[in-house]
Amino acid sequence: MPSIELFTAATPNGQKISIFLEELGIPYTTSAIDLGKDEQKTPEFTSVNPNGRIPAIVDHSRNDFPVFESGAIFLYLAEHYDKEYKFSFENADERSEMVQWLFFQNAGLGPMQGQANHFYRYAPTKIQYGIDRYQNETKRLYSILETRLSSPGRQYLVGRNSGKYSVADMSTFTWVRWGPWAGIDVSKYVKLNDWMQRIEKREAVKRGLVVPTGEDQIERLRRDPDVEDPFQGWVMKGQEEVREKHGN
Amino acid sequence: MPSIELFTAATPNGQKISIFLEELGIPYTTSAIDLGKDEQKTPEFTSVNPNGRIPAIVDHSRNDFPVFESGAIFLYLAEHYDKEYKFSFENADERSEMVQWLFFQNAGLGPMQGQANHFYRYAPTKIQYGIDRYQNETKRLYSILETRLSSPGRQYLVGRNSGKYSVADMSTFTWVRWGPWAGIDVSKYVKLNDWMQRIEKREAVKRGLVVPTGEDQIERLRRDPDVEDPFQGWVMKGQEEVREKHGN
Repeated sequence: MPSIELFTAATPNGQKISIFLEELGIPYTTSAIDLGKDEQKTPEFTSVNPNGRIPAIVDHSRNDFPVFESGAIFLYLAEHYDKEYKFSFENADERSEMVQWLFFQNAGLGPMQGQANHFYRYAPTKIQYGIDRYQNETKRLYSILETRLSSPGRQYLVGRNSGKYSVADMSTFTWVRWGPWAGIDVSKYVKLNDWMQRIEKREAVKRGLVVPTGEDQIERLRRDPDVEDPFQGWVMKGQEEVREKHGN
Repeated sequence: MPSIELFTAATPNGQKISIFLEELGIPYTTSAIDLGKDEQKTPEFTSVNPNGRIPAIVDHSRNDFPVFESGAIFLYLAEHYDKEYKFSFENADERSEMVQWLFFQNAGLGPMQGQANHFYRYAPTKIQYGIDRYQNETKRLYSILETRLSSPGRQYLVGRNSGKYSVADMSTFTWVRWGPWAGIDVSKYVKLNDWMQRIEKREAVKRGLVVPTGEDQIERLRRDPDVEDPFQGWVMKGQEEVREKHGN
């Protein structure tokens, strides 16, 4: 019987893992990490993730094995709890393709969009060079995804059967959904926007998106595009917390 | 008989893959991609890597299978060509640990040090905020590595047998070795510096570091710390090329 403990906060990297746990339908508990209180820097937490970032998991059903880095958590959970390959791939080439797009998100889209968030939303002074640099790179990466999803018949990012929704999609989805927070108009990317809406309709995704606060901040942003702080204050304490939260 | 084609340039992300191919001792050919001529944006190359970045490989011995993202290339080559687990792990928990530190490098250290390179070396105007932000984050990440390597008896980043050199080390090594280019004094991190020197002594590493130009730029930088352009001009053409080259 699986018993996963998820350390998380309401960020794109946190949400992607709660979504996967909901999709897998395995038992898990949630430990909300209050980034505003630096809870990600406590010795208890850095024993799980030495880098002091969310998300991280501890697998109590496998000798309390700890896993950090969202990309590594996806691959760990897929290996142990997706044995029927519902959201991953048995074929080695398709699995590599999944890993390639997982790295594309973790090494490219996440860090660059995180920097766009920073310069667009949080930097103490307006630095237009930083805003442009990272919004432009984020847009370039969205256009790569748009091209990918424009192949005839392709519904999801990975696999010969292009209709298969996988962890590569989950990983990318939360970041694209947060695009407006970085000042990116996702609706300009037609296929990407369709793909996002397709994923949003899944019941497991809806459940995963409200972990751990019970609220979906992007829904709040959609209702009020001028809302300054969908996090309701707790992340605006200082630049360092924001960097930790959005930097990667 | 393996037959790998490596598309690469003289950057930390390129060098890590030539090092692994040299360590594995399998046949490979090198296609040097001239970033100054935008060769990474040609249709020929984007058919291999849709994101238009080096490194990428094509495995001619496995139906010309293409792999992009250096982290994904490591996992692909390990799966198919390190069947004796010389540089990877058979045990699932140790393999996950390796994947965690691989993501730590690809999603954290690489992108952040890449931004430090940009603001410290290449931005058209001096923006102190950007220099500080990314140098500080890079230093924080180096201190995480320093702590990791300070555990009693630990020689390398991953594994219960802490004396085992793996792809997690190769992936991190090239970035740490390029630290001075981002303005980081690696010698301040004693254990990390020792680890770097240990890896540098390996013959396969020496061979990998001169792919594809035949020259080791960091050696050049060490001989002349004031050298403005260890790339000898070809990467200084414009900011976009630099961003492509150092951004990730």
